[in-house]
Amino acid sequence: MSEQVEIIEVGPRDGLQNQDAILSTEDKVSLIIRLLDAGARRIEVASFVNPKRVPQMADGEAVLNALPSRADATYIGLVLNERGLERALATKVDEIGMVAVASDTFGLRNQKQTSAESVDVACRVLRDAKRAGRRAQVTIAVAFGCPFEGEVPESRVVGMAQKLAEAEPVEIAIADTVGVGVPSQAKSLLTALRKALPDMPLRCHFHNTRNTGIANAFAALECGVRRLDSSVGGIGGCPFAPAATGNIATEDLLYMLNRSGFSTGYDLAKITGMVPWLAPRLNLAELPAMVSRAGPFPPVAA
Amino acid sequence: MSEQVEIIEVGPRDGLQNQDAILSTEDKVSLIIRLLDAGARRIEVASFVNPKRVPQMADGEAVLNALPSRADATYIGLVLNERGLERALATKVDEIGMVAVASDTFGLRNQKQTSAESVDVACRVLRDAKRAGRRAQVTIAVAFGCPFEGEVPESRVVGMAQKLAEAEPVEIAIADTVGVGVPSQAKSLLTALRKALPDMPLRCHFHNTRNTGIANAFAALECGVRRLDSSVGGIGGCPFAPAATGNIATEDLLYMLNRSGFSTGYDLAKITGMVPWLAPRLNLAELPAMVSRAGPFPPVAA
Repeated sequence: MSEQVEIIEVGPRDGLQNQDAILSTEDKVSLIIRLLDAGARRIEVASFVNPKRVPQMADGEAVLNALPSRADATYIGLVLNERGLERALATKVDEIGMVAVASDTFGLRNQKQTSAESVDVACRVLRDAKRAGRRAQVTIAVAFGCPFEGEVPESRVVGMAQKLAEAEPVEIAIADTVGVGVPSQAKSLLTALRKALPDMPLRCHFHNTRNTGIANAFAALECGVRRLDSSVGGIGGCPFAPAATGNIATEDLLYMLNRSGFSTGYDLAKITGMVPWLAPRLNLAELPAMVSRAGPFPPVAA
Repeated sequence: MSEQVEIIEVGPRDGLQNQDAILSTEDKVSLIIRLLDAGARRIEVASFVNPKRVPQMADGEAVLNALPSRADATYIGLVLNERGLERALATKVDEIGMVAVASDTFGLRNQKQTSAESVDVACRVLRDAKRAGRRAQVTIAVAFGCPFEGEVPESRVVGMAQKLAEAEPVEIAIADTVGVGVPSQAKSLLTALRKALPDMPLRCHFHNTRNTGIANAFAALECGVRRLDSSVGGIGGCPFAPAATGNIATEDLLYMLNRSGFSTGYDLAKITGMVPWLAPRLNLAELPAMVSRAGPFPPVAA
């Protein structure tokens, strides 16, 4: 019996929201059904945010209406405030994903909230979501560094997590939103969080912007984290664009996990098999994921 | 005083030999001088192999003739047999890099040698090189897996290293030649090698073919390895080609090391600054390295 790692597939939300191409509702639903067929069971399928700011996610309600109701799948909807929660609760979304930001500048620019304000809003949203009978979790954004302020003190992230824990989310995630983290930093931060909140399940969300994403995921595994976000194809940032910011790729993470003896319930071949379907719909010749291009190992007998 | 990690720059050899474009001798020399200016002090500058099989490296003698003689730099020449050693010894190369292969099929296809034969040849070459007054080291190729045979038993790599150690190389390197390794495997193999050869300096050579290269480098650091190969720009495999096989990128490795508190003597900005010069000479729009595209962190004040 190999140890289980839960991969949370975020391609349909964090992935798609950062691509120039906007997928049709039909294609989004098809993408999610293909992910379910490949073994994904916990999927970020939509966000309920300002459609003027994130047009890629404007059809969240339509996507959820069109998705199959499956007892074995958990559909996650991302929200940033009470308005978003209200929209999400009007759908069949199973789980609410809320965000608090670890940097004032990042929060003020993106949500017109300081870090402290984002924690207060997150606690209210988490409690309201649970009251409405949904699973609720929270992610601490830019926990590894801010593109405007630079370094983010570990103590600030730990303090935020302690406050957020009072709202009793099902888990707390730390996100390297802009892909600046390194594995030694992941180990240090996760060790501090584990010490402060020994019973709180932790999730990690890494981007491969500076090629450290899989290394950070490995560091998180070494710290006992068994919940990792990834996106099929590594979408969320184009490798040909400056400052590519793609999530770590589901197939690259799967390769590392499979070869390390972890089980995930995913079928790697089905994930890599999705690339020829997905890439053209994003107007991309290639997706950032590398295992899709490199092929399987050990080599498959001809 | 932060701990030192020695980066061995292999772009001018392992990098260039796997690119379609062939750099002129002048451009190769200019590349190496730019690397020296960026802080590189140990550089694989040429290989002395069959020019019919590796035309990219046909001008090894000319490159070494044109390089500045520097007391603070170590120029490495790769050889695969006595004929190559003879050519290398006729140049001012400081260090001989020899190779033994961990898979019979890989060895027979590439050097017409079994794994055992490659170890015997390597021991002779190492002894002859030292007798000629040069530094000599050896790399165990496909130590993490073979594209033809698949898994390579750890015990085989350890056994090879024990035999090679009898020829007293300055270090033994393990190479993930085809980029199939994962960090848990690196830790296991390095732990076994350290146990078998407690006093032998170990070097690691990783490729980022399946996006595990930086994770493997981090695992090696955790095992106490302080000598890592990398190539400027991550050249050695084109990210747009199937089965890209680039070395881990010097700038991506530097970013991880700098942010982890290690010192290297390299100037990261000078390495990333080389990309606009190098990419067009390789007829590439982008190089695999990601830090060059993502930009510095913490952000540089305007």
